[in-house]
Amino acid sequence: VKTLVIARSDVAKIVADVGRDALMDELIHGLTDALRAYDSRVTEVRKRDGFNYDRRRGGGTVRGAPQDLTGSLLEWMPVMELGGSATIKTVSYNPNNPRRYGIPTILATTSQYDVKNGHLVALSDGVFLTALRTGASSAIATRILARRTSSTVGMIGCGAQAVTQLHALSRVCQLERVLIHDVDPGAKDSFPKRVAFLGLDVRAKELRELEAESDILCTATSVGVGKGPVFDGRELKPWVHLNAVGSDVPGKTECPRDVVERALVCPDFRSQAMLEGECQQIPEDMIGPSLAQLVKAPETFEAYREKTTLFDSTGFALEDKVVLELFLAHAARLGLGTAIAIEAMPSDPLNPYSLSESEAQADGTTLNPRRNAG
Amino acid sequence: VKTLVIARSDVAKIVADVGRDALMDELIHGLTDALRAYDSRVTEVRKRDGFNYDRRRGGGTVRGAPQDLTGSLLEWMPVMELGGSATIKTVSYNPNNPRRYGIPTILATTSQYDVKNGHLVALSDGVFLTALRTGASSAIATRILARRTSSTVGMIGCGAQAVTQLHALSRVCQLERVLIHDVDPGAKDSFPKRVAFLGLDVRAKELRELEAESDILCTATSVGVGKGPVFDGRELKPWVHLNAVGSDVPGKTECPRDVVERALVCPDFRSQAMLEGECQQIPEDMIGPSLAQLVKAPETFEAYREKTTLFDSTGFALEDKVVLELFLAHAARLGLGTAIAIEAMPSDPLNPYSLSESEAQADGTTLNPRRNAG
Repeated sequence: VKTLVIARSDVAKIVADVGRDALMDELIHGLTDALRAYDSRVTEVRKRDGFNYDRRRGGGTVRGAPQDLTGSLLEWMPVMELGGSATIKTVSYNPNNPRRYGIPTILATTSQYDVKNGHLVALSDGVFLTALRTGASSAIATRILARRTSSTVGMIGCGAQAVTQLHALSRVCQLERVLIHDVDPGAKDSFPKRVAFLGLDVRAKELRELEAESDILCTATSVGVGKGPVFDGRELKPWVHLNAVGSDVPGKTECPRDVVERALVCPDFRSQAMLEGECQQIPEDMIGPSLAQLVKAPETFEAYREKTTLFDSTGFALEDKVVLELFLAHAARLGLGTAIAIEAMPSDPLNPYSLSESEAQADGTTLNPRRNAG
Repeated sequence: VKTLVIARSDVAKIVADVGRDALMDELIHGLTDALRAYDSRVTEVRKRDGFNYDRRRGGGTVRGAPQDLTGSLLEWMPVMELGGSATIKTVSYNPNNPRRYGIPTILATTSQYDVKNGHLVALSDGVFLTALRTGASSAIATRILARRTSSTVGMIGCGAQAVTQLHALSRVCQLERVLIHDVDPGAKDSFPKRVAFLGLDVRAKELRELEAESDILCTATSVGVGKGPVFDGRELKPWVHLNAVGSDVPGKTECPRDVVERALVCPDFRSQAMLEGECQQIPEDMIGPSLAQLVKAPETFEAYREKTTLFDSTGFALEDKVVLELFLAHAARLGLGTAIAIEAMPSDPLNPYSLSESEAQADGTTLNPRRNAG
């Protein structure tokens, strides 16, 4: 009864073996299938919940409360498929990480549990998986809602998520030009090199020009709570499709209210987007179809390709479930991962102290019901 | 930047090295200190939340919904200390596990995160740790509330949790006799052998006698929702101290309502106990001090040693934090645990694809702020 740990080296080997284009394509395909099949009576997706590291109760400064962690979060995103598996991603958002520690803003791990008995089946990196699935989700929305001739994409925010956003979009659109903007010159200047593998014409632009020329516009910023929007929306093309992926806490939004009001707004997860996404800016009755509804009936929304549309991406635990399953399948195929017996399995299940220092007692990786079970 | 995995073999080695009595004593001591220092402005404890495996939405049978998982749960219990660490235990409750799979009813793993940057510092078994900390919590309540001359303890429910309940009680009371009852004859008959290491006089009793003779009474059952109480309470001694540890879901209770009404009821976690514990049976204004309040001012409750008292134990994430820290300290001392680099740490934190198949790039186990960090 072991847990398969998919480490960062396994993730790297899977990417190297499959290839990043094929991996993104597989994920877009798998996630599309999962969204098409999504039935909330069978698969229960919970809204993200979590801790603010800088939270101070009752105002004032509290012992131990650090001063430099504004906006930092640790959150959990659970999803459970009846009769199948449960997946819980724990994800933290730490805008100071790249500068302070040289590590990503978003750190995450993802766990899979067997709902028949609660066993932790697998634990995987969630950093790379989050970047990949967030890109794939935007690609799915874009494929349904963007004008078919879209060739110019604007990127506001050029951090880690922007790389996989652009990569994913490149798999579903015939992109030619990429216009970029970031308030951090370092992020902006290094972006062309980070996406050089896509072979696209990438150039920095003033926001006004970026807006005016983009068929597709993606926001992936660390703008502070109450500090949005990150563009003013006056020059947008009437058919622009927006992917807003940065909003993830109450009060944080990236898009101008009037743009959200006039767009067809498609949240990944309506109840969460109303708390944390661009949907915060509009009443519930102005919110359009969810991503799953889009995928189930794309032809219904054909006319919106010529109108302003907005994918409000706050993160949907089903995406984490699908990307984890994809990586577990590749790990199985390639024989990757480290199996560790983590949960204490006493030789007598009714005696917590019947532990053995030897692992010999329990070295199967799967649990089989006993033949004589009633 | 690695994660230390404390596996079942490490847990067994720690128990063997420290000894079960010393380990329980250390935990009782450490948890007492943590409860005494507990400040909800610094340490945020969340109520348990989770999935029911057998949940059916909108009535009727749903594809994939298994028929034999009634009452099975997968839950998460998060706690965060500002400026310190966050701990999340995921715990599942599967009453069919011992019979079907030969594994414990309660499976769990516990994770520790660094709140400065979100890094998963450690992942440990939570099965043994849960049994240990649940016992330690009852011992702390019992030491403060039970009559000083208490020597007879009654155990209703003789499963895995009962072993560590009795062990913990034996560390704080001069126990002589143990009276046991279980609706499952197998559990009842095997219990004396499982607690033989305590050297106590353990014998099965009818419920009426067990009630009448016990100075301390512990309920640790898998009674179904709405199927309680598990004893009728008519024969209890006026000074009995009860530890009710089985209630963990809405509707499940073990104690008779009139006993709860006349006892000083001390929940581990008031808001959770009102949803899932014996506190469900009384209005909020009848609930007594929390376990932390007891520990902060034990002399205040001295007079209750001669009265009926009830520790309503639903599980408190602070307990999981303390027991994990204890095991991590012993693992460090003994050089135990397996360090694995799980989270993808790209060589460029702004480029998810800058993964290396080699682990050489990131082999430190701690994160140090960069010297030039602003």
